[in-house]
Amino acid sequence: MARVRYPKAKFLLYGDEARIKPLVDAEQALGDCVTIKHTPDVITGDAKPSQALRQGRNSSMWKAIEAVKLGEASGVVSAGNTGALMAMSKLLMRTMPGIDRPAICSLFPTRLGETVMLDLGANATCDARNLVEFAIMGECFARAILGLQRPSIGLLNIGSEDLKGTDTLRQAAQMLRESPLELEFHGFIEGDDIAMGTVDVVVTDGFTGNVALKTAEGTAKLFAEFLKNAIKSSWMAKFGMIFAKPVLSRMLARTDPRRYNGALFVGLNGVVVKSHGGMDAVGFANAVGVAVDMIARDLNTKIGEELERINSGGATLAQAASE
Amino acid sequence: MARVRYPKAKFLLYGDEARIKPLVDAEQALGDCVTIKHTPDVITGDAKPSQALRQGRNSSMWKAIEAVKLGEASGVVSAGNTGALMAMSKLLMRTMPGIDRPAICSLFPTRLGETVMLDLGANATCDARNLVEFAIMGECFARAILGLQRPSIGLLNIGSEDLKGTDTLRQAAQMLRESPLELEFHGFIEGDDIAMGTVDVVVTDGFTGNVALKTAEGTAKLFAEFLKNAIKSSWMAKFGMIFAKPVLSRMLARTDPRRYNGALFVGLNGVVVKSHGGMDAVGFANAVGVAVDMIARDLNTKIGEELERINSGGATLAQAASE
Repeated sequence: MARVRYPKAKFLLYGDEARIKPLVDAEQALGDCVTIKHTPDVITGDAKPSQALRQGRNSSMWKAIEAVKLGEASGVVSAGNTGALMAMSKLLMRTMPGIDRPAICSLFPTRLGETVMLDLGANATCDARNLVEFAIMGECFARAILGLQRPSIGLLNIGSEDLKGTDTLRQAAQMLRESPLELEFHGFIEGDDIAMGTVDVVVTDGFTGNVALKTAEGTAKLFAEFLKNAIKSSWMAKFGMIFAKPVLSRMLARTDPRRYNGALFVGLNGVVVKSHGGMDAVGFANAVGVAVDMIARDLNTKIGEELERINSGGATLAQAASE
Repeated sequence: MARVRYPKAKFLLYGDEARIKPLVDAEQALGDCVTIKHTPDVITGDAKPSQALRQGRNSSMWKAIEAVKLGEASGVVSAGNTGALMAMSKLLMRTMPGIDRPAICSLFPTRLGETVMLDLGANATCDARNLVEFAIMGECFARAILGLQRPSIGLLNIGSEDLKGTDTLRQAAQMLRESPLELEFHGFIEGDDIAMGTVDVVVTDGFTGNVALKTAEGTAKLFAEFLKNAIKSSWMAKFGMIFAKPVLSRMLARTDPRRYNGALFVGLNGVVVKSHGGMDAVGFANAVGVAVDMIARDLNTKIGEELERINSGGATLAQAASE
């Protein structure tokens, strides 16, 4: 699927050659776009990041990330252990100058189109400066991927009033409001604002973002299941569906989690995309698409320029953070 | 609506008599079940809790809570300022013996039925002991309202492995696993487990719970809107809907946020139910229903007995917390 969509792309597949080769050989359409790189080791889903770093130097994950570092690949896509992937990416690629911690960033479907949300799980706890960095990177992402001139930014909170939430959130809001970063800061938003499309970029810590993402996915899945069961429950509805099916299928496709598969690790000197572990081929092809997009639109250079602009403007992020 | 559903209930309405009386008089079916209690002051939506406590002694909110304290009412339902309602309820009713902080608790629709979730926003930050208290209160709620013999309890986290999340969560998990509370502790769950119905009681801090609740509501609303727009977009679909409408309406009713309106403040010596501010009559009548249920099933006595049982078992919650 990715081959058809991106005919110029070439793929290096890292893993057990004995298992990969027959599958690749069976797909003649792949032609010579695939090179298999045999790796003896695997990072398991339950491996601790520290353990993966120590023992995983010959794993498919390590070798794939290393290929980006060595310039053999333009980006890496993995459906593996998120913590290990982030730890290895940080170690091998390093974070961008001016960025303390990378974040996991993805698009969400909303009433008005799509919204960028980060962090989705890289950092369970964040300080105010981390949140401000996420805001800057998310803004660049929204400019590059959604083509917005001036994306609006919201901080996810439990109320829109200034007094709500934690000290960290209030401090981050103050930094975004007062510092000369020239960001379009909307202020605090609440959970239901995500789907409403109230802002273009939703900034939150990795714990809250991960729970919100998965809660939204679970709710969408539940809704789709209720809908399917409701239709199956009556012959009248089944008859009606003969006529309504095309538009309903389009509607379900619009909220299909596979369509939103592929989260970007932003803040690294390289493109790393994380696919959900349980995704099928359609979902994984979409994650490959995210990586291709990021490379083609040169997101990292844009984030670097933005950070440069902020720093050269006399107001460094560090200054903003210490105010 | 509440009058029809609960013919024995009597209602004390606190507020501006000049505005309430004409509305009550217009509904002849209310008969003599309503008594209007005129109160001169109002707690506004943006009032700080501390300010409400100082200046709100003659407000409708204060007087309504006071009526419960004085035994004039069995419970109170409010759609007002959540922070002020909680602060006044704590001050006037006090928390139950053994409970450090009350929580906001409500039911969620799931694939398998309904799940209890708390805290939904009373406590932005919680320590491990608070979370254990929420687990106990949520378990009593699930026994009393869902009629379960042994409700399972899950701690909301960003991964199901023991290592995931914050120190507070790991500590709370250890307390729930090791202490002799005889709770059915499932372990960590993730955001998508809420809608899947993986556990009967979802325990989380008020920040995460509030974001999850509102994100789920926003997603359900978005899905319903996408569905309605999809049908409107094609005459074929509109024709099909003539047949499919009854089951689809039932499906939408099942996830209607109005159906789940009415969150209970658990851990107080009295029944306090919070309605969403933006609810219509259907939603508010459901919040009244929650209060009637809690009073009829005597939830607070059951929570008290459970706490008593735990304390007399030689293992007090305080001991569990200090382990």
